[in-house]
Amino acid sequence: MRLSQFFVVTLREDPADAEVPSHRLLARGGFVFKVAAGLYAYSPLMWRTLQKISQIVREEITRGGGLEMMMPMAQPKELWVSSGRWDRYVKDGIMFHLADRKDAELCLGPTHEEVVTAYVAAMVTSYKQLPVNLFQIGDKFRDEIRPRFGLMRGREFIMMDAYSFDVDQRGLDVAYEKMAQAYRRIFTRCGLQFTVVDADPGAIGGSGSQEFHVVAATGEDALLHCPSCAYAANVEKAESEVVAPPDPGAPLPLEKHATPDVRTVEQLVAFFPGWQPARMAKTVLYKAVWADREEVVAVMARGDHEINEVKLGNVLGALAVKLAGEEDVRAATGAEVGFAGPVGLSDRVRLLADAALQGQTNLLTGCNETGYHCLNVNLGRDARMPEFHDLRLAKVGEGCPRCGTALEGARGIEVGHIFKLGSKYSAAMGAHFTDQDGKNKPFVMGCYGIGVSRIAAAAIEQSHDERGIVWPAPIAPFEAVVAIMDSKKPEQTALAESLCSDLRAAGIDAVVDDRDLRPGPKFKDLDLLGFPVQIVVGRRSAEGVVEFGLRKDATRTEVPAAEAKARALAFLRPAG
Amino acid sequence: MRLSQFFVVTLREDPADAEVPSHRLLARGGFVFKVAAGLYAYSPLMWRTLQKISQIVREEITRGGGLEMMMPMAQPKELWVSSGRWDRYVKDGIMFHLADRKDAELCLGPTHEEVVTAYVAAMVTSYKQLPVNLFQIGDKFRDEIRPRFGLMRGREFIMMDAYSFDVDQRGLDVAYEKMAQAYRRIFTRCGLQFTVVDADPGAIGGSGSQEFHVVAATGEDALLHCPSCAYAANVEKAESEVVAPPDPGAPLPLEKHATPDVRTVEQLVAFFPGWQPARMAKTVLYKAVWADREEVVAVMARGDHEINEVKLGNVLGALAVKLAGEEDVRAATGAEVGFAGPVGLSDRVRLLADAALQGQTNLLTGCNETGYHCLNVNLGRDARMPEFHDLRLAKVGEGCPRCGTALEGARGIEVGHIFKLGSKYSAAMGAHFTDQDGKNKPFVMGCYGIGVSRIAAAAIEQSHDERGIVWPAPIAPFEAVVAIMDSKKPEQTALAESLCSDLRAAGIDAVVDDRDLRPGPKFKDLDLLGFPVQIVVGRRSAEGVVEFGLRKDATRTEVPAAEAKARALAFLRPAG
Repeated sequence: MRLSQFFVVTLREDPADAEVPSHRLLARGGFVFKVAAGLYAYSPLMWRTLQKISQIVREEITRGGGLEMMMPMAQPKELWVSSGRWDRYVKDGIMFHLADRKDAELCLGPTHEEVVTAYVAAMVTSYKQLPVNLFQIGDKFRDEIRPRFGLMRGREFIMMDAYSFDVDQRGLDVAYEKMAQAYRRIFTRCGLQFTVVDADPGAIGGSGSQEFHVVAATGEDALLHCPSCAYAANVEKAESEVVAPPDPGAPLPLEKHATPDVRTVEQLVAFFPGWQPARMAKTVLYKAVWADREEVVAVMARGDHEINEVKLGNVLGALAVKLAGEEDVRAATGAEVGFAGPVGLSDRVRLLADAALQGQTNLLTGCNETGYHCLNVNLGRDARMPEFHDLRLAKVGEGCPRCGTALEGARGIEVGHIFKLGSKYSAAMGAHFTDQDGKNKPFVMGCYGIGVSRIAAAAIEQSHDERGIVWPAPIAPFEAVVAIMDSKKPEQTALAESLCSDLRAAGIDAVVDDRDLRPGPKFKDLDLLGFPVQIVVGRRSAEGVVEFGLRKDATRTEVPAAEAKARALAFLRPAG
Repeated sequence: MRLSQFFVVTLREDPADAEVPSHRLLARGGFVFKVAAGLYAYSPLMWRTLQKISQIVREEITRGGGLEMMMPMAQPKELWVSSGRWDRYVKDGIMFHLADRKDAELCLGPTHEEVVTAYVAAMVTSYKQLPVNLFQIGDKFRDEIRPRFGLMRGREFIMMDAYSFDVDQRGLDVAYEKMAQAYRRIFTRCGLQFTVVDADPGAIGGSGSQEFHVVAATGEDALLHCPSCAYAANVEKAESEVVAPPDPGAPLPLEKHATPDVRTVEQLVAFFPGWQPARMAKTVLYKAVWADREEVVAVMARGDHEINEVKLGNVLGALAVKLAGEEDVRAATGAEVGFAGPVGLSDRVRLLADAALQGQTNLLTGCNETGYHCLNVNLGRDARMPEFHDLRLAKVGEGCPRCGTALEGARGIEVGHIFKLGSKYSAAMGAHFTDQDGKNKPFVMGCYGIGVSRIAAAAIEQSHDERGIVWPAPIAPFEAVVAIMDSKKPEQTALAESLCSDLRAAGIDAVVDDRDLRPGPKFKDLDLLGFPVQIVVGRRSAEGVVEFGLRKDATRTEVPAAEAKARALAFLRPAG
């Protein structure tokens, strides 16, 4: 194996659109080439990494009961209509879709629940054929609004997706747990630090789900976890206990105050000294979108709390919720933005409130009149009683919902997600089997996804330095590089070749760097490329002495070649 | 390995749309599931076969100098416009294309010349980085007018595509020959009988190309080959020597005859006794389509010859040619269909003729008047001289263009195609490198495709019988099956398991058929599934005696288990 044969091209300039280290380093190292926004070609070295990740995933999902197969990426609209997802995904704009030459509509699969359910329904008639868990590793497509972060949020990316079919919930629980264990083995074998959190199932649906996150400062997801018990959740899903504000006592008379140009919680605190945010109820207007209609709704939350739009969308059963525009606010409240409130709100506007407001008296709120706010608002007296739900975004420092300990925060990159779907898809699509008792029942399903290309990017977010990538050894393009300093010296080439052969014979994926580069640029290049073990064959090669170093360290030590092999083995195969 | 764990579901009914054995048997064996027209899911067993084919392809293309990488399936329109292919492929209707959420147009790659050329152009600046040959194995898309024959002509299918980049034609010749040799090794290792023929490069373009065909009666392609020399060609491309008709002598006076309702060559033979088809010149009107226009052209050929539309399209440089409709014929000739000819043809209509008509005197032709034909037509005297080109479809029995021996025919399934592209794409796309002499030059390219999923179907076309598939061992889902006759007998299970372990320890990909089926259905199923070696563990298992048979034979022999292993090895590993 010679690196000169692997089409290695490193770049001097950072790409203009790189916002995170993995994007910058993958582009600089020539690992990826941007074909269009969110569409990347993978270089030969990158493909080695992606194949190594795929193989780890394949082995562990198989150990966890999965059976590999393959489904088409192009899927007919009819299947998505039968599950009820076509409208949602098309309205979201997240799904690529097209018409073929006969004007039949197709989509490019963002996920394969529909196809696999149709397949299993066609093949399985009896409970005797269950359980089955089918998986594939291949490209998925998402028409992202803003593709970015390189491989982190692309429009075409590599995923493993698995689908389990069981006769009942107990079977699903077993399949789900086997997958959860397989996922832990996969991320551990990939050399990643990861965390598992409760998650919102989103558009996939189902009764429960967990996400697997690589912990990294650049992660797009905010996570909360309890340092005492096992509780951990994506902030989209997280619950927490909040401290109630001091009891404001029995209802006082409503007061209406002119508050010109006072719109935000901060401005209100300044305007009404002594009124803390916890006693204010802000009212935010959202536009909710369903398949067949749109509606503006009003949502109340404590002044010191944020509204969780994911929870809100779930409560409404909406396809999407977004902040209402100025026009919509005026139409719904009759006032400018900043003065919405429950007092005097038209009956036409649905009113929801976060559960933390339940039972709270004497609130400060808007009253749908530009330039005015009210004090001592009591819901049910001064305004209609809202529908209370958990609509709050949990925060660092609030109490763990299980044990009360203050929650801590972290950033994560989602690399895996597992879902208990139940019979959501099988019931909608009429996918039934005959159970032991002779009755027709819908399959009880789970689905499980791992972002294969995203793992590569996440590994870099977690493991890099100012000089470049530090690949975890199990997914590095090569585990070890033996670099020739001067390829015009035959003894250097000979020693490097023989040491590389020794390493390969010992099962180490090693390569000789025989590229004709001067030492400075070569070291810089190798640091950027990030092979975990670096062995340098230079001026003492005639004596059989080389330099041994690890990419993660800054130093190299002169050792005999045999010792370099022993050290490489000790680092790369610590168990053996 | 137990077959009960592989989601094997065989069907009793042939699919209604199956026209060829591979489609019928793949569906019956549950190997494929039709998701929509031309879109198939591959079962776990099928995926084993496809992975085995892919691995053979990967190993041999790598041996031939290829470097594996991966490109996105979704490609931006801009790249296809830069190569000049967008219009042709969209007009042909063969390319799936779509607009993303920002209305940018994308296509699903039917091939990747544009992407790989853009990639190499971005990475390679100097001749020192060449040659390079990049390949990938993944899905390709074609919006077929009539998807059919199962995996033979699907809309999404698995291909290996390789692209070589060299500094000059000599480099290309070397890369091309290495690929040609790799292809021979691949099809040989897959256990296929194949033939290599000269081919028309079609929409891919370039200066030369060869196709690799699996020989099978059901093949879509007509091939001609010489039994004496190495000449072989797809009929689309084939040349041949034809016997000139008896010399009709010096020009005779033109005669015009009323020929009411006489339109075809056969009718003319009956109407004008003594005038053989070889002395007739039929004139066929075609509509040719370019990116910016359409034109009706007249094409003459001997009455006993057929016009080769591929050659015609190449001569015209057209995107497509198709027979002109009745309206167009009337507009161009002023006569009904059946009476077109060179005599009196409007100067507005371009006139071409097959080279076999060159120098022929005293022809029988139409004269663009309904109900009339002319005798003793002499081109250049009675009509303008046409442009002569080789436009004829070569036929079985005609002379080999190299040695004159009568050509023989065969049917083939195209499983591979290699092209010398030259600088067609690199010049169009401005993809240059700096040569040794400091000059900017376009890359000299080759491209190479193998239909991975089509190989599986072609193998079945070549190797099946009335009972089912007879997989070539190297690409069978399992090489050997050890079938338990009665899974309630522990000694049968024990012997089968231990024999299977022995086989696997010897490197044979064996599986135990532990499915709870009665012997009749089980044998029928196994014959359909087509594992090459069948070992049956039945009533004499207590004595350690099993039945050994090959799927391709009709019989099985009772032998001790150890002997069955030896026979399996002798059949599957004849060299070892």
